[in-house]
Amino acid sequence: MNVINRVLVAGIPLVPKPIVGFFSRRYIAGETLEDAVRVVRELNRDGMMATLDVLGEEINTREEARSAADTYKQVLAVIQSEKLDANVSVKLTQMGLKHDARFCREIFRQVVHEARQRGIFVRIDMEDSTCTGETLAIYGDLRREFDNVGVVLQAYLRRTAADADSLMQDGRANFRLCKGIYVEPRLIAYGDKELINRNFTLVLERMLHDGAYVGIATHDERLVWEGMRLVRELGLLKERYEFQMLLGVDSELRKIILAAGHRLRIYVPFGEKWYRYSMRRLRENPQIARYVFQNVFRRA
Amino acid sequence: MNVINRVLVAGIPLVPKPIVGFFSRRYIAGETLEDAVRVVRELNRDGMMATLDVLGEEINTREEARSAADTYKQVLAVIQSEKLDANVSVKLTQMGLKHDARFCREIFRQVVHEARQRGIFVRIDMEDSTCTGETLAIYGDLRREFDNVGVVLQAYLRRTAADADSLMQDGRANFRLCKGIYVEPRLIAYGDKELINRNFTLVLERMLHDGAYVGIATHDERLVWEGMRLVRELGLLKERYEFQMLLGVDSELRKIILAAGHRLRIYVPFGEKWYRYSMRRLRENPQIARYVFQNVFRRA
Repeated sequence: MNVINRVLVAGIPLVPKPIVGFFSRRYIAGETLEDAVRVVRELNRDGMMATLDVLGEEINTREEARSAADTYKQVLAVIQSEKLDANVSVKLTQMGLKHDARFCREIFRQVVHEARQRGIFVRIDMEDSTCTGETLAIYGDLRREFDNVGVVLQAYLRRTAADADSLMQDGRANFRLCKGIYVEPRLIAYGDKELINRNFTLVLERMLHDGAYVGIATHDERLVWEGMRLVRELGLLKERYEFQMLLGVDSELRKIILAAGHRLRIYVPFGEKWYRYSMRRLRENPQIARYVFQNVFRRA
Repeated sequence: MNVINRVLVAGIPLVPKPIVGFFSRRYIAGETLEDAVRVVRELNRDGMMATLDVLGEEINTREEARSAADTYKQVLAVIQSEKLDANVSVKLTQMGLKHDARFCREIFRQVVHEARQRGIFVRIDMEDSTCTGETLAIYGDLRREFDNVGVVLQAYLRRTAADADSLMQDGRANFRLCKGIYVEPRLIAYGDKELINRNFTLVLERMLHDGAYVGIATHDERLVWEGMRLVRELGLLKERYEFQMLLGVDSELRKIILAAGHRLRIYVPFGEKWYRYSMRRLRENPQIARYVFQNVFRRA
């Protein structure tokens, strides 16, 4: 236990795939869409919504980008045919954001369009800070055309409060707010955990106050508490917001949120490319890693 | 000292009665009503109010319940005849809440009625979370009939903010707000000390803002500070609230509260059944235990 923690905290670049795989089992639905559907059905049965994430990021060719878009279209079709209470979360690098931003926008627009036809919402995941500007620009454009698309803002970025304000100017913003998990330089992101929490609370208050729809995405009980406080103070209907958590993390907190009468959506990643998602959670956020480990060991 | 702490922190089920008795002397007035009267007179002389608690809880027969009610009636008579500045605090399990809730409500109502005749207030103590719903229901019923009855809400319970709101809807609520001392599961109570304090402050603000009378019951200087801040901000007359502390804890904090011009009531337990009250303080809140020990040893 201690050895493993130390290896991760030190940020050693490579952890053998079987080890990562073992630890990631808890928070990846599986390799196939069938696995994901099964997990979503269980969540739905237990009163939770889901968002499906097809694992994968940063592709190199237009073919790979098209293939990712096609996979998402297939997921949309299955969500509809299986009547799942689920939407999708998409990383734009997977559709070529860094390779060819115009092309990325084009094929991603088709995904959003198809989702619109099927009555499904599409959340654009946020990646590291080299993607922020372009991702927000694509969201901004599409949001003018579609009401079924939203984006993510990360409370640890120094720019986030200003981004929230500017994106809310059209009055139809749809955000997920999370702390942020990528390793960022100090000039770009707050490092102080208390400051990240205060910024999260501040930005959340502004979003909710200004009428944006917000997915409050956190496993930090203090932020869950702040979220509950704000929605109560503002007298918000529960259709105006949702709590969000990652698959495999803190099932007690799930129950606490549901018991308090709030809606909760679980982020369900699946697919063959689970290594980078898993490594990010293991390496870039040792706290979640430790948490996941504890759960694994507790079960073992 | 270290050995004793370790024994207590480990939560060993039984501590020999003489040892508990030795440590509890400081915060129990004594075994008889005369002992309690003497302590209350001293407190009154020093500018403090008191609330008398006849030690005992969870009885098994109606006779025991009736006997507890009779003892309280005797206490009420003595408060009046001795012109003490004191009210009473009652645990409903002592009048049979778990044995026969209807019967409990009936005989407790007689206590409140008799207290009303004598112009004395009755505070219903709160016990562990298995009692919360029933206790609040009895308070709610009696509060419609009597203006001399109040209840306790515990800031560590997740339900408390909602309970406060719902009990304040009739506009005549009278609360003691404390953190809560019983050991509760995570689904029911906050474990994070910081979160308990935030919740205490939030609920206190709402109570005071909405015009409830509040007994601010804490030995935590940060919460005393929040209480003073709120009554100042809201411009409350000092008849609208009081601070409350347990007998035997932090006599300096008493002086600080009194010197700032606030009213302070001391919780004065007495009686033969001091073991469970003492053990709860010693075992379930090692911090208070340590605190009490330190005072004892400092004097020794």
